Amino acid sequence: MKIPPVKGTKDFYPPDMARRNWIIDGWKRVSIRNGFEEYDGPIFEYLKMFQVKSGDEIVEQLFSLKDRGGRDLAIRPEITPTLARMVNQQINSLPRPIKWFSVPRLCRAERPQRGRLREFFQWNIDIIGVDDVLADAETIFCALDYLREVGLTPDDVVVKISSRKMLAAVLNAVGVPRKNLDSLYAVLDKKNKLPAETFEKTLNEQLPDPKMADKIQEFMNLEDMEQIEKMFGRQDAFDELTELISYLNEWGVGDYCRFDPAIVRGLAYYTGIVYEIYDRPGELRAIGGGGRYDNLLKQFGGPDIPATGFGIGDCILGILLKKKGLLKPETKELAYFVACVNKDYKDRAAEIAVQLRSKGFIADFSYKAGRLGKQLKLASDSGAKQCIIIGEEFNSKQLVVKDMATGQQQLIELDKFFAQLKSELK
Amino acid sequence: MKIPPVKGTKDFYPPDMARRNWIIDGWKRVSIRNGFEEYDGPIFEYLKMFQVKSGDEIVEQLFSLKDRGGRDLAIRPEITPTLARMVNQQINSLPRPIKWFSVPRLCRAERPQRGRLREFFQWNIDIIGVDDVLADAETIFCALDYLREVGLTPDDVVVKISSRKMLAAVLNAVGVPRKNLDSLYAVLDKKNKLPAETFEKTLNEQLPDPKMADKIQEFMNLEDMEQIEKMFGRQDAFDELTELISYLNEWGVGDYCRFDPAIVRGLAYYTGIVYEIYDRPGELRAIGGGGRYDNLLKQFGGPDIPATGFGIGDCILGILLKKKGLLKPETKELAYFVACVNKDYKDRAAEIAVQLRSKGFIADFSYKAGRLGKQLKLASDSGAKQCIIIGEEFNSKQLVVKDMATGQQQLIELDKFFAQLKSELK
Repeated sequence: MKIPPVKGTKDFYPPDMARRNWIIDGWKRVSIRNGFEEYDGPIFEYLKMFQVKSGDEIVEQLFSLKDRGGRDLAIRPEITPTLARMVNQQINSLPRPIKWFSVPRLCRAERPQRGRLREFFQWNIDIIGVDDVLADAETIFCALDYLREVGLTPDDVVVKISSRKMLAAVLNAVGVPRKNLDSLYAVLDKKNKLPAETFEKTLNEQLPDPKMADKIQEFMNLEDMEQIEKMFGRQDAFDELTELISYLNEWGVGDYCRFDPAIVRGLAYYTGIVYEIYDRPGELRAIGGGGRYDNLLKQFGGPDIPATGFGIGDCILGILLKKKGLLKPETKELAYFVACVNKDYKDRAAEIAVQLRSKGFIADFSYKAGRLGKQLKLASDSGAKQCIIIGEEFNSKQLVVKDMATGQQQLIELDKFFAQLKSELK
Repeated sequence: MKIPPVKGTKDFYPPDMARRNWIIDGWKRVSIRNGFEEYDGPIFEYLKMFQVKSGDEIVEQLFSLKDRGGRDLAIRPEITPTLARMVNQQINSLPRPIKWFSVPRLCRAERPQRGRLREFFQWNIDIIGVDDVLADAETIFCALDYLREVGLTPDDVVVKISSRKMLAAVLNAVGVPRKNLDSLYAVLDKKNKLPAETFEKTLNEQLPDPKMADKIQEFMNLEDMEQIEKMFGRQDAFDELTELISYLNEWGVGDYCRFDPAIVRGLAYYTGIVYEIYDRPGELRAIGGGGRYDNLLKQFGGPDIPATGFGIGDCILGILLKKKGLLKPETKELAYFVACVNKDYKDRAAEIAVQLRSKGFIADFSYKAGRLGKQLKLASDSGAKQCIIIGEEFNSKQLVVKDMATGQQQLIELDKFFAQLKSELK
């Protein structure tokens, strides 16, 4: 009975797993050095958890299931609702600011496409309890600290930054009724994701007056704050944007960042700085994005506490890193391969390998115990630093140690060999 | 709107996450040094995947869902079916033996109870392609290599070992019809998990003759192979069991192991050596278990290739480690905490912290930038090795470095400080 994998999922054979681990280990390392602590929640939550932030449209993008009591659950498509729930649950005992990160496994029931699988991993960074653009700057820096460490330059990636406050003020000035704002964000977010005509049509459907659409499009195409000031007057959000960009410049990552009023983010829940990270030529979908969401904890039944954060997925990032030749996980190299001259010594080879492992060394042997030459090739292929050869000498408690780099061999007493080893165990 | 977590799931706040990571990192480290490579599969598979090995009874223990096409899926309750699918898919290109490990997130829809959550993590080790008891020995060694490394002694844990071949032969000698065997294993597996009366009743229901039940119980209570030989004659499986135990003795882990004919494993799919790992006093459910399953790949539509492996969950192991005081994750210590004498220097503190992170150091600063004393306490609480203090000296490009262990302070030029730092980046 042959059963295929579910469409849109990924099997991680060891080479794929090594790449996944390499990406995720980097995320974790950079999060920790930026002062974030790791958390995680369950793989599923009550379905309604995901409707609070994203409305009912999200439901058809979810893998939903029922528990034994018939309650509706869903596999998480994002971790922010879980974060809000967890923080609210312990809000009185958690020291603030809360600087947390997570690398959740997430699922969405969309049609699979390039760079968008039904199951993926996402790096999430959030700072809760700080109402200061310094926190927005720190999250953006953290993303760039990672992207720069893995070798992506300002020629490879760009963080496009804008402000929801500014956008709301401009939309207000243009005459868009306040009640239309939430649904309008989802439409504006599609500007660079839809053909121009389709976008224009959808936009006009949302607005009472076609002149509004023109004004909005004009705004989104502007390049700097001066132009915006000229057309729409000085905006309160300018100070915050200027401060943010000045932090990023001071911190040496300004070259990666660009002000871009076309950045909207689809969800209604953003309240301040918003940003998205793209490959510089704009050939791929967004690598990630985030921003300030000061009302979310309250929406989840908690207190009124400000928050800011981002999510970066593994799919597009993986495609970009691969394209740039930067996806190069280190293989765990064998410290020792234990070979034997023939099958009679196989058990002795296994014994020595096992003893080396007990001392913390990465060690292996061959179950086949074929010709010595074949075993030496295996040792070399698996990157072993030393190869131990077990043969007749073993009967007088001696073994041969071959340095795989120099090819030099040494005959050594078994006891002496183990006495010389420094344990790798902590 | 306050929504609770789903019953039987676990929220990993940072201290819980640190414990989970500590356990899982250990599993990974020991797997790698024992020569295993990591793999993973999707969180869900087609529902029927889980029926191949475990029959229809498994269905009610699954969280099942449907994809958009209405096909039945289930969140994985174990990874072995996925392993069989993945290996079969690439059977011609994978070099053998296949020595793989995984640490999957798994779910089951059971009633939650102590040491049994609806969501958990499980360490899986498998060797595919070796028809030699040496491979069974290697998997058991690998489990013990971990348990020993974290500090569990033979007084704390025991591996109870038996053989399905031997059990099948004995059941045959007792007169149990072959067709009853598969369902009988599930019953016998309950011997030490059910009250004696209930077990006896269930056992008798499965057998045509009450004398058979007596004989079987007698067998399961025997302590060594000699007694079995006396009652049931010499068994073919004795050689294999003796060889296995002799490997484990040679490798220094014999004290952890015990022959126990009451070990059955519930699933029909085991074909040879079987074992379960328990806390020595037997107060807890099994920590893990495994054995040889030579027919599974074939059952999943693949070739006839032998295999052996185990699974160890995080729940019972966590309870035991906690009880023994052995669950002690290291906290990632700050290399630097950057304090400032007052709020005017907060941005400078952030800047220095960010520069240190750029060089790979774990560094943080305070958003509140309260009294210096408070910041120094924060530095000390977060285990910082050095605390940098930014004050008036910063205007003449100098900073104070305080060694948190000795309390010694040093005034140093900013440039010199950074020039002396050795980057922590690889």
